[in-house]
Amino acid sequence: MNSNTFTNKNLLVILEENLRLAKEIDPQQMKVLVQEIKAAKRIFVMAAGRSGLALKMAAMRFMHLGYTVFVVGETNTPAILEGDLLILASGSGTTSSVVSSAEKAIKQKATVIALTADAESTLAKMANTTIHINAATKTDFGNSVSQQYAGGLFEQFTLFILEGVFMNLWQESGLTKEDLWPKHANLE
Amino acid sequence: MNSNTFTNKNLLVILEENLRLAKEIDPQQMKVLVQEIKAAKRIFVMAAGRSGLALKMAAMRFMHLGYTVFVVGETNTPAILEGDLLILASGSGTTSSVVSSAEKAIKQKATVIALTADAESTLAKMANTTIHINAATKTDFGNSVSQQYAGGLFEQFTLFILEGVFMNLWQESGLTKEDLWPKHANLE
Amino acid sequence: MNSNTFTNKNLLVILEENLRLAKEIDPQQMKVLVQEIKAAKRIFVMAAGRSGLALKMAAMRFMHLGYTVFVVGETNTPAILEGDLLILASGSGTTSSVVSSAEKAIKQKATVIALTADAESTLAKMANTTIHINAATKTDFGNSVSQQYAGGLFEQFTLFILEGVFMNLWQESGLTKEDLWPKHANLE
Amino acid sequence: MNSNTFTNKNLLVILEENLRLAKEIDPQQMKVLVQEIKAAKRIFVMAAGRSGLALKMAAMRFMHLGYTVFVVGETNTPAILEGDLLILASGSGTTSSVVSSAEKAIKQKATVIALTADAESTLAKMANTTIHINAATKTDFGNSVSQQYAGGLFEQFTLFILEGVFMNLWQESGLTKEDLWPKHANLE
Repeated sequence: MNSNTFTNKNLLVILEENLRLAKEIDPQQMKVLVQEIKAAKRIFVMAAGRSGLALKMAAMRFMHLGYTVFVVGETNTPAILEGDLLILASGSGTTSSVVSSAEKAIKQKATVIALTADAESTLAKMANTTIHINAATKTDFGNSVSQQYAGGLFEQFTLFILEGVFMNLWQESGLTKEDLWPKHANLE
Repeated sequence: MNSNTFTNKNLLVILEENLRLAKEIDPQQMKVLVQEIKAAKRIFVMAAGRSGLALKMAAMRFMHLGYTVFVVGETNTPAILEGDLLILASGSGTTSSVVSSAEKAIKQKATVIALTADAESTLAKMANTTIHINAATKTDFGNSVSQQYAGGLFEQFTLFILEGVFMNLWQESGLTKEDLWPKHANLE
Repeated sequence: MNSNTFTNKNLLVILEENLRLAKEIDPQQMKVLVQEIKAAKRIFVMAAGRSGLALKMAAMRFMHLGYTVFVVGETNTPAILEGDLLILASGSGTTSSVVSSAEKAIKQKATVIALTADAESTLAKMANTTIHINAATKTDFGNSVSQQYAGGLFEQFTLFILEGVFMNLWQESGLTKEDLWPKHANLE
Repeated sequence: MNSNTFTNKNLLVILEENLRLAKEIDPQQMKVLVQEIKAAKRIFVMAAGRSGLALKMAAMRFMHLGYTVFVVGETNTPAILEGDLLILASGSGTTSSVVSSAEKAIKQKATVIALTADAESTLAKMANTTIHINAATKTDFGNSVSQQYAGGLFEQFTLFILEGVFMNLWQESGLTKEDLWPKHANLE
């Protein structure tokens, strides 16, 4: 790295790849997410690795808005039951722990929404609703879809689509920033 | 280690140290825990390191019994408010994140119960109720109280006292094993 | 609960159940754990729910002693490879995420040690070494093995056996309490 | 919500706010991050809530690239020492657990980099290097900086700037996507 030439070029590439996906997305897909979240008794989220962290970021926001949310694997997460919603994310749509959770949730008659980069994957076929994100999967080692490493774009856009969904839910709720504030964790 | 002489001696030492504490404990201290848990709107737990993991084990059980529990730092943890209970554990009673949580909870008029090995510590003095566990603190490098390393005995007994509290709560509840089973996480 | 009759009886029952297991255990089983931990390049641990928390408590201690440890699902956990050790725990020996991890680790030629209450379970049959803990499984709703709820005794004893293993490793190491102290997390 | 008018407008607002920050950022700030990461013996990350999750996403990527990373609060995190780097994020720059970690790290002579939306905050003043993100803080209830809720933009851009930093580190490393792949967690 030549210190004179350090630029924010990569940062712009990343943002522009996400902006492209935002322009391409069918708003109907976001609408389904909004509707299922509003209809659910309780919302569960689950994914491995960075996708899992993106879902946790979204889940925390849904809690701020007053929804009952649980992250699979955290301490206070109870059994999922009929009437609950499970939001899953897997770029490849084949992550075994994610597919296994989908199976178990379907058996309980919970609703399953899957975010995936592969609309033909095992996960996509099992889910009640699939949100297809047109990003590279982790094992797509080419550059045609994204210049980023591995599933980076998928994981980023998983976060963004849920941030967009939150913003819609928030606007609909009519709640102000001040209204939501008292929910924020206050022991850290 | 001579392979011929490998014994379960250390395991017995560990169990006997815990059994000694179990015999010494004032049942009144466990009773307060039982009463505060039953009286609380919601139960929050928080500790650093291994003490934190022991509290998570207990919190999961309280959830199985139907209580609303949150672990500070997990995704769905909201703000603590008046009427809530915060259970803290710190061998030394000086862990800064734990002391800081106690301060914030008290400011919110939540009830604070502290488990500590030092009944004269900052934490002990702040808490509404202190459960004193007569184990070595992490920085007690002697052997008089425990042959175990660092805060080992404190962390183990923090778990045990809460397991005992759970068993009391469960028996009082009149619920059977089958009654509780449907709460167990079913997506793992 | 009659306030006059509150006793530490349940606490004693819990400790005595664990003490019974400690007396019954074949020291050879602990010896294998000690030897595999010493032989491993890196140590991975994985279990669901409370068993997972017990393994985390042990893993933190092994780190204090200088071992390289990773918890499956945490942020910095890399791929497991040949020469690594995976310690799993499942009372029933059938938890799907645990069985799935065992399969993947075996495929990588890592060594798998399973702690389980069912020596005939899927997990027990897959593992290189099985540590059989004679406690009730979660779905054993009887009282003959343990008066405790569900897998309580299994989860407690999973912690204890590893505490015993740690104490052996520590004594063999010749390190003092002061030697280990500098490894303890200092940012909490 | 009128189903006929559901659009991706909010998603575009979110992306455009981030793109604005990406254009504004001084590349020199990213360069410092790149240099400190390369110079550090080990990298520690720590933040509360959603900022913490964003840092975990970045930390996982740095691990893929071969860096030794630890998340404060996770099981295998040892003490921070001189020569280590601590990356912190706090929109307000006043989160008590984050400020407390900064203090402790500085005492150990570790290097501290703070990402914050308030360049005049306690945290900003303590850190060796401050990356100023021109986003609203959580308690800025106005709309002038961001139309999003609370610290949303700050948390998103904390992720993005680190994704950009990763992309720079990766390109410099000369490693291919295939080279990094074997580091990815393989037990989930």
